[in-house]
Amino acid sequence: MPKEFWDSKTETMPLKELKDLQLKRLKKLIQYVYNNNQFYNKKLKEANVKPADIKTLKDIEKLPFLTKQDLREYYPFGLVCTKIEDIVEVHASSGTTGKPVVGPYTKNDVDLWGEVMARSLYANGLRKNDILQNSYGYGLFTGAHGFEKGAQKIGAMVVTISSGNTKRQINVMKDFGSTAIACTPSYSLYMAEVAEEMGFDPKTDFKLKIGCFGAEAWSDEMRKNVEKRWGITAHEHYGLTEIIGPGVVSECKEKKLHINADHFLTEVISPDTGETLEPGNEGELVFTTLTKEAFPVLRFRTRDLAVYYEESCNCGRTHPLMSRIKGRSDDMLKVKGVIVFPSQIESALMKIEGISDNYQIVKTKKGDITSLSVEAEPTEDRWKQGKLDSFEKQAEDEIYSILNLHVPVKAIEPKTIPRSTGKAKRVIER
Amino acid sequence: MPKEFWDSKTETMPLKELKDLQLKRLKKLIQYVYNNNQFYNKKLKEANVKPADIKTLKDIEKLPFLTKQDLREYYPFGLVCTKIEDIVEVHASSGTTGKPVVGPYTKNDVDLWGEVMARSLYANGLRKNDILQNSYGYGLFTGAHGFEKGAQKIGAMVVTISSGNTKRQINVMKDFGSTAIACTPSYSLYMAEVAEEMGFDPKTDFKLKIGCFGAEAWSDEMRKNVEKRWGITAHEHYGLTEIIGPGVVSECKEKKLHINADHFLTEVISPDTGETLEPGNEGELVFTTLTKEAFPVLRFRTRDLAVYYEESCNCGRTHPLMSRIKGRSDDMLKVKGVIVFPSQIESALMKIEGISDNYQIVKTKKGDITSLSVEAEPTEDRWKQGKLDSFEKQAEDEIYSILNLHVPVKAIEPKTIPRSTGKAKRVIER
Repeated sequence: MPKEFWDSKTETMPLKELKDLQLKRLKKLIQYVYNNNQFYNKKLKEANVKPADIKTLKDIEKLPFLTKQDLREYYPFGLVCTKIEDIVEVHASSGTTGKPVVGPYTKNDVDLWGEVMARSLYANGLRKNDILQNSYGYGLFTGAHGFEKGAQKIGAMVVTISSGNTKRQINVMKDFGSTAIACTPSYSLYMAEVAEEMGFDPKTDFKLKIGCFGAEAWSDEMRKNVEKRWGITAHEHYGLTEIIGPGVVSECKEKKLHINADHFLTEVISPDTGETLEPGNEGELVFTTLTKEAFPVLRFRTRDLAVYYEESCNCGRTHPLMSRIKGRSDDMLKVKGVIVFPSQIESALMKIEGISDNYQIVKTKKGDITSLSVEAEPTEDRWKQGKLDSFEKQAEDEIYSILNLHVPVKAIEPKTIPRSTGKAKRVIER
Repeated sequence: MPKEFWDSKTETMPLKELKDLQLKRLKKLIQYVYNNNQFYNKKLKEANVKPADIKTLKDIEKLPFLTKQDLREYYPFGLVCTKIEDIVEVHASSGTTGKPVVGPYTKNDVDLWGEVMARSLYANGLRKNDILQNSYGYGLFTGAHGFEKGAQKIGAMVVTISSGNTKRQINVMKDFGSTAIACTPSYSLYMAEVAEEMGFDPKTDFKLKIGCFGAEAWSDEMRKNVEKRWGITAHEHYGLTEIIGPGVVSECKEKKLHINADHFLTEVISPDTGETLEPGNEGELVFTTLTKEAFPVLRFRTRDLAVYYEESCNCGRTHPLMSRIKGRSDDMLKVKGVIVFPSQIESALMKIEGISDNYQIVKTKKGDITSLSVEAEPTEDRWKQGKLDSFEKQAEDEIYSILNLHVPVKAIEPKTIPRSTGKAKRVIER
């Protein structure tokens, strides 16, 4: 009988046992960072915490948070807890809003990364006989490298194509018979567009069956569109350069996001007060890496908003769950006193008949007043039908029903919004 | 005492022993491809050779060559000798002149690749405490992946930056303290230009000491320029997607190219007649991969022209040598009955005072007659001095002294020839 889980013993471990393991690892971690890194040593002393004070998981709350600001200050290697020469790989964020965030790995860290990625890809259905087209952008960005490591651990074939040159992507997908793809969800939709232009039917002309998507926020409705368009099952991946890149969660067949909790301890806090919330409440995700060597993080504030919860799952995995990300606190827009996440607008738009998957939220600022509008591409067919005011009206109503806010929607000519091979730019300022 | 070789036992093995090992592996290989691949089975039968007929290394000459044409015909996986599901990684050439060439690897092949790359990088001086900025373009192209595997095997830190965004390259080089760089030689020169524009002195403002260059033809003179410009030692790397990507040779401190002959059996043939030449003669390199599983090649005609020779080297390595590549038979130009390789023109140009590293060979065809001219950028200083006809005259004389051919040279304004982050385009047609 083929095995159901990549690492059955760990993935189905009773929650109680898992928590005991977390505590054991947490104690070790605190001692480790205290001994090996000046910044952490100072931080712990300032908080008046000695490693021996950590007696329960709850005691983690005695410790201060680690913020983006700390990472910037100690850029590039100030938070490393090993010798620099023990690092074998480094990734980095793009650093568009300041110094990049650096993710250094020892050999053991790389193995750990491969292991949690193998779990995640295996949970998506990837097996040894699959061919994974790895269309995330290779480079400093962490994504592609994580997918490569995990898929190779499973023994699948990795086609290291990176992003871009979309016609070539389609030819390779056809010629090699790729059965799985890893990229941003918006890039997969652009690929479908190009495949159609090349005369293919994305649903029937390829062997594709699994999509491994991440690195941008996307709604459940968008997921359904991707699945329909390609005739595949689309899975969510979640990760951050600061934690381990992709591989933080494993999405099962039930489309539940299981946190790989033997390695990543998760808390949810109020983004305003920093107060720890009980499981089941929405808040900012905070992660502690329990086993990383080069660059462990202690209570890292992700700014990502989601719910953490502990309940049983039909898939048999016992690891705690998190909801999909509602948005990042950075992405939050405040319009006429209403909090708006781009993902909410996407959810509304995707309900309209005749819409393509391409839209843009236009933010305009006049003095202190922010207003929003939306530009959305109907499908070619819908565009030709005309009567676009009914299309627009319907979209405005859907948005209103979710947000209680009037946001004007304009139908624009198909294929006018720029396509991206990486993260789609959903919000623009004008 | 620090060790001198990555794999002392193999790299200093007496030549006689090495040849015994080659023969043993060759016999096994012939049996293997005969049993496991229809194409090879048919080819061997057509040549009337049974595996048992291979009794000496010389017997390889009984076998037919493998050509680019064969690879195209059996694209993508027709030459694979394992099950497709045993492949864990695939690379490919750009396929600009037809179907791409595909390089599939099993897990053992990947390990072998890492091993020969580790030998090569170690021979360049790369050690565990080095930081390798991997500026080859990641993607389907084989280069970056090979350097990553080899450097990680040594335990060096790999900065997976890929090519492009040159200002960022320079910032990372500075911030991370990169001690080694891997990229095309022409890209390293462009980086130096950008570093200077950013106010850095490439020689003194960085920790760089080792350059690992390849993927394009470059002359010894160009190598000296790169070394002077950056204050580093520049090493040549050689490889092909069909063989194993980079890692075919290890360049030692003496700047001799040692073929990793326990894995790659080398012949040199006359490109015209296909006849095997004695060591010491220049001809087309032909490789047989002795140990690859997924995609072994038997007598692959590379079209690369070089000399294969067996002599002792001061570095202590016993593996046979090859000269640097003079050019590919595809690159050969025939002008007024004279055979010209772009590398010869480069050698001539680099001898002139006041030349930058940027030049272009312009090929013009009128009916059956091909003529050549050269456009070369003087340095900024030389450009400002004026009297450029003496610059041009000197360049023409140097070229004449090598080729016995008059090739007009035109000095053109600095920074007008397009820079590349990958292979430089040295010959253009007008």
